[in-house]
Order: sequence, then C-alpha cells, then structure tokens
Amino acid sequence: VMTVVSKVTSFGKKAGKIGADDPRKVIHGVKVGIALTLVSIFYYTRPLYDGVGGCAMWAVMTVVVIFEFSVGGCLYKGINRAVATSTAGTLAVGIHWIASKSGEKAEPIILSSSVFLLASAATFSRFIPNIKARFDYGITIFILTFSLVAVSGYRVDELLRLAQQRICTIAIGISICLVVCVLVRPVWAGQELHLLVSRNMDKLADSLEGLVEDYFMKDKTVEGEVSCSQRSQGYKNVLNSKASEDSQANLARWEPGHGKFGFKHPWSQYLKVGAAMRYCAYCMEALNGCINSEIQAPEHMKRHLRDVCMRLSLGSSKVLKETSSSIKSMKESRSIQVLVGEMNDAVKELQVALRSLPKQLPQSPPAAAAAAEAATTEKRHCVPAATISLMEVMPLFTAASLLIEVSERVVGVVDAVGALATLACFEPIDHKKPSSS
Amino acid sequence: VMTVVSKVTSFGKKAGKIGADDPRKVIHGVKVGIALTLVSIFYYTRPLYDGVGGCAMWAVMTVVVIFEFSVGGCLYKGINRAVATSTAGTLAVGIHWIASKSGEKAEPIILSSSVFLLASAATFSRFIPNIKARFDYGITIFILTFSLVAVSGYRVDELLRLAQQRICTIAIGISICLVVCVLVRPVWAGQELHLLVSRNMDKLADSLEGLVEDYFMKDKTVEGEVSCSQRSQGYKNVLNSKASEDSQANLARWEPGHGKFGFKHPWSQYLKVGAAMRYCAYCMEALNGCINSEIQAPEHMKRHLRDVCMRLSLGSSKVLKETSSSIKSMKESRSIQVLVGEMNDAVKELQVALRSLPKQLPQSPPAAAAAAEAATTEKRHCVPAATISLMEVMPLFTAASLLIEVSERVVGVVDAVGALATLACFEPIDHKKPSSS
Repeated sequence: VMTVVSKVTSFGKKAGKIGADDPRKVIHGVKVGIALTLVSIFYYTRPLYDGVGGCAMWAVMTVVVIFEFSVGGCLYKGINRAVATSTAGTLAVGIHWIASKSGEKAEPIILSSSVFLLASAATFSRFIPNIKARFDYGITIFILTFSLVAVSGYRVDELLRLAQQRICTIAIGISICLVVCVLVRPVWAGQELHLLVSRNMDKLADSLEGLVEDYFMKDKTVEGEVSCSQRSQGYKNVLNSKASEDSQANLARWEPGHGKFGFKHPWSQYLKVGAAMRYCAYCMEALNGCINSEIQAPEHMKRHLRDVCMRLSLGSSKVLKETSSSIKSMKESRSIQVLVGEMNDAVKELQVALRSLPKQLPQSPPAAAAAAEAATTEKRHCVPAATISLMEVMPLFTAASLLIEVSERVVGVVDAVGALATLACFEPIDHKKPSSS
Repeated sequence: VMTVVSKVTSFGKKAGKIGADDPRKVIHGVKVGIALTLVSIFYYTRPLYDGVGGCAMWAVMTVVVIFEFSVGGCLYKGINRAVATSTAGTLAVGIHWIASKSGEKAEPIILSSSVFLLASAATFSRFIPNIKARFDYGITIFILTFSLVAVSGYRVDELLRLAQQRICTIAIGISICLVVCVLVRPVWAGQELHLLVSRNMDKLADSLEGLVEDYFMKDKTVEGEVSCSQRSQGYKNVLNSKASEDSQANLARWEPGHGKFGFKHPWSQYLKVGAAMRYCAYCMEALNGCINSEIQAPEHMKRHLRDVCMRLSLGSSKVLKETSSSIKSMKESRSIQVLVGEMNDAVKELQVALRSLPKQLPQSPPAAAAAAEAATTEKRHCVPAATISLMEVMPLFTAASLLIEVSERVVGVVDAVGALATLACFEPIDHKKPSSS
C-alpha cells in the first residue's frame, strides 16, 4: 500500500511541476473542458441519439478530436475535417447514385470495390511527405466518411438530408473549438516557433561562453574533475529541437496573422535558422568532448591562449545574442556588422596567438633543455624541443580550431537570420528608407 | 493546363518512386483496403444506421482510425481504444446512475461538471511525457466515450445494452485489423528499429572511411573543390534519426514476441545505442567541417599522416561494422575485442606519427633554412622553423585529434552494444556456456 501511495504522490508532484513550469498546459485542460461543456449544453435539450443516428454525437466527437494545444493545430484539424468530410461525402453520394442505377447485382460490387480502391490509394498517399505534413488528418477523415456513406444502406435522398445535418453539426463543433481556442488565452504555433528559435539562440550563446569559461577556469579545481556547469550544456537543447521546430512550422502555416506576424510570415525560414544553429551545436558538442578529454594542455600554454579564446567565445556569443534579440524584437540589427567584425578580429587574434605559441614552448624545462642541446647538432636535435610539448598542446589546438570553426558557423546563423529579416520585412535600421512592402 | 498536367505527372512519378523504394508502403495501402472491405462485408447485410445509433458505424470507424503501418502501432491503438472505451463507459454509466438519483435539478449540473472535470484532467495528463508516450490515443478515446455517454439522454438500462453492443462492435473492428495486419506481410516496429539501428551503424562506418579517404585523396583533383562522395555523408542520417527511433521503440513495446525477438526484448537499450551513435556522428560532423575548410595542410604533411589516419579510420569503421553485424545476427561478436585493440593501436600509431611530425617540418625549404640558422643562435631562432608550418598543420592536427575523439566515441557504441547483447541474451561466443536465460 505504501508503495502505491508514494507512487501516487511522486506522480502528483511530477504533474504539479509540469503545471507550474508552464501554466498554459493547465489552461489548455480547462479550455477543453469549457468547449466540451459548451457543446453538451448546446445539445442538452435534444436527445443525443435521435432518429437520424445521433447528430449531436458528431459535434461532441469533433470537439474532442479537434481541440489542440495551439490555434494552428485546431485550424489544421478543423479545416482538414471540414473539407475531407464534404468532399468524401459528395464523392460517396455520387458513387452511391451510380451503384443504385447499375442493378441489384452490381451494386455491392461497385460499392465494395470503390471503398477498397479509394481507401488503398488514400492510405498510400499518406506516405508522400508533403501530403503527410499538411493533410494527414484530413485523409483519415476522408476514408472514414467515404466508407461510412458508401457502405450505408440509405437511399440517395435520405443521404443528402443526412449529409446536410452532419456537415452542419461538424461546423458547430469546429466553431465552438475555434472560439474557445482563440478567445481564451490563445497559444499560437507561430509565436511558439518564434520564441523557441530565439530562446535556443540565447542558450547556444550562453553555452558557448560557458564551455570556454569552464575550460580555462578549470585549473582552480585541482582534481581535474569539474562538474559541467548547467549553463554550458544548453546547446544540447538545440541538438534535439528539430522535431518540435518542424511540427510547429507545419501548424503555423495554417494560422491567420496574429500579433506581429502576418498571414504569409516566412515560417519555413525559421527552420533554416534552426538548421544553422544545429550546425553550430554539432561543433560545440565536439568542443565539449575535447574540453572534457583526459589529456589536458599544460597550464602555462592555456594561460597564453586564455584571453584570446575568451574574447572569441564572448564575441561569438555576443553575435548570437544580437541576432536573437533582432529576432525577438523583429527589428534589423543596428550593430550586427560591427559585432561580426569584432568576432572576426578575435579569430585573427587567436590565429596570431597560435602562431606565437611555439615561443612559449622552450619555457617548459625539458623542452628548454632539448632546445639547448639543439644548438650543437643541427636539424635532428632541434626537433625534440617542440616534440614533447606538441602532443601536450594537441587538445588546446583542437579546442582553438573548433572555436574558430564555431565562429564560422555563427556567420551561417547570421546569414540565415538576415534572410529571415528580409523575408519577414523586419523593421529596417534606417528610418528614412521606407519598409519595402 | 500544361502546368497542371506536368504537376500531376511529377507527382505521380514521386509517388511511384516512393512505392518502388519501399513496396511495403503500397502493401499497407492494400491492407487497409482489405480490412475495410472485410468489415463492410461483415456488416453489409444489416442497415448501417439502425435503431441503436449505428452499431456497424463503430466497426468501420475503428478500422479506419486504428489501422497503422506496424503491428505495434495497431496494437497500441487497439488496446488503448478497447481499454479506454470500457473504463470510460463504466465510469460514465456510474455517474449517470448517481445523477439520475439526485433529482431533476441536480442531474444536468452533476453531468456537466463531471464532463468538465474529467476532460480537463485527462487533457492535462497528456502533457506528462510517460503518459503521452503510451496512452495518448487512449486518453482521447476516454474523453470521447465519457462525454458521449454522460451527455446522452438515455436511461441506465438502455445505456448498458448500448455499451454491450458498442464494445462488441469495437472488438470486431480491432480483431479484423489485427488479423489483416499480422497475417498479410506484417511490419513489426521492433524489427524496424533493429534494422534501423544496424543500418545506421553501417552508414556511420562507411562515412567515417569515406570522409578520411576524401580528405587524403583530395590532392588528385587540383582545384581543391571536391564533391563530397555520397558515401561520406551517410552520418547525416544518424544525426536526424532520434525521432523515428523513439517512436518505433514506443510501438515495439506493445508487440508480442516475433521472429528473433522475445516479448520483453530490451527495446529501450536500442535508444541508448542510437544515442551513442549520434554522439559519434556529432564529432564526424565537426570532422567534415574541418576537412572541407579552406585552409589545407601542405601535401607533404598530409602524406606523412595519410597512412596512419587511414588505418585508424579503417580500424574504427571495422569495429562499427563488427558491432553492426553482431546486432544483425544477434550473436556476441567473436572478434570485437581484437578489433577494438587494433583500433587503439592505430590511435597510438597516430599519436606517435603526430609526435614525429615536426621532423618533417625542416624539409620544407623556408623551415629548413630557419632550422639551419637555429644552429647559431640558441633558443629564440629555433622557433620560427616550427612557427611557419604550425599554422598550416592546424587543420591536419584538428582532423587527427577529431579522428581520435571519434574512435573514443566508437568505444561508447561498443559498450552500448555490449549492454544490449547482455540484456537481449545474444547467442554467446563460447558454445559450451549455455545461454543464461
């Protein structure tokens, strides 16, 4: 009994945490309750299963299956359901009419084979990616409606009356859904996508700073085991965000203009920005591996590069934060060119620092000894001087060149955001020039 | 008109290609057709909308919404639907009975508020990840059934008769689905997951070989612009496979034993293998970036490392191919320890080669001159010799150390596969030892 109680409490705590983290999820639950109560009150006066096969039932069913978290999801399902029901209904009535004219023997054959063919073809069409993304739900409803009407034993004139009632009921269900969804604290898929992308960009910027800081500040804890700071692991969110970005972009397409976003807002460009960020994050994952590798460069080498590396990571992170705030405010960035320039300067500084790195090598005692030895025998013996330390600096070298690679990929993010700014007509910097559309 | 025609043809070609690439998709379409035809023949003799609200309708609806590509998907939806319908039905009848005893005024209030509360709570529970993964569909059906029954104007005895019929019809629908799904060329989600993971592992191995080969063979095309070979880009599939692995592991859980897999096959371990592979792929993505960077190391330096790098990449790729074939055959690998040993030897060789790299530096004319000069003035002048080439070898260095990092992550894959072998009781190497379960 105790285990059951403790399980229930831990479950309750988990649920409570989810609700506290995002109160909109609780509100969504309440919204579904409201919509269902509204539709049941609407139909309460009539018996649910009356002569024509339970019209009100279709309204309740519509509300239950259509109500989604975001307005885009609601619209996607609602429009799909409405269009699919009417086209499938029309088609089925037509085939019914043809079958009824073809004699009693041919009728069941025509009906069954039409169901078979259409259901097979429609199911197969769901594997086509474009159709799957936009009409998946509609195809289910199409098959359902067509089969129900085609298989039913009604005469054509009865069917027409039924169809009219059905469509009317579904329309009522969809309207109630949309009204509740839009009026009570609406969640717009487009806005979610917008926020997700800019939030991820901030996380990327923070974790780039955090990673480099961890690496160069690490020496303070002598054991070498440093718990990765929470902040530096933010890029992992970016690695796994593709699925949610894709689905939100799909839903956002159905939404009308809302807030700062027009109807034809270029949602697909957000996916490109997301891809550019992931491209950055892959490189940061390798950087993370390199930073946490067992072989560590000697302290004095690290100290030599610390300031330039920190400057570069700070520069890249500033660029990312600037593009993120440009997305958030939907204004073209005033300072992005300057910041990218600063970042590139930092890259050059780092390259210079790397070039001057070997000067540091002889400072370490064994290398210095070897270098002294090198004075006597020409080439061959000059080598060990650099040799010993070269292996030791490997991880530092790799980290530095990955950092340079990350900054190159940050430029990719800047370009993608620039394209977004053009497509979405972000507010231009110079207020003398009028917005181009 | 011509554009419409050309659009239709291109669409047809696309659909044809999808069907040719995976004939099971076409077969799935046919299977849905068969199931629907069967259920409509089953009910053809009875009028679809008879007095009790269209019993047969529920069978058709069940088939349309439950039939999924994999057996696991069918079972997931079928079991969810059956359980949700019966529990929600029972609960609703109970509340109906209570409401009917509470007087005419309280009845609608009790019913409406119970719908509101249950719908809200159930909708919220879908946000809890575990519940979402296993019972998402069931919760929709639960809300639907509960609302329909609670809002209906029937007396309790009528409801019981209705419920019995409804459950019976849904059971028929589910049975027809499962029979068609399992008997006609079944697609098992578990097997799909198994194949996906081992196929991705092969791709990873091939693309690791391909990347390194591209890099070191690149010099043959003088322009420096080399089209990345198709093979070397295989790791990109691994980067984006998380979503499909997750969904298949979720569905595989519902499947009974099939083929080589028992009922409690450790599907979740496949996700860990997948994560280890993705961890490899992130590093390969960075390697790819480094290989295609504009700064290229001088030829003679590359030549120095070519053989060891190729040996290492071949060694890592052999390890991955061995684990992949161990998964495919579900046998413990006989040679994996030897191969990992060879890979580690190759890592050591590469490290030695890197250590001896500076010996090569003086061969390039300016460096040689500087080295000669170094003989006179001790430390300070020894440096420029290494300095010049150090920047040039940066990308080579980075590539080599990323290659070493990849091989470390390959060991992670080997460990994950080893855990899978233990959990899934792969056939042991030594046939004298009996399998432990």
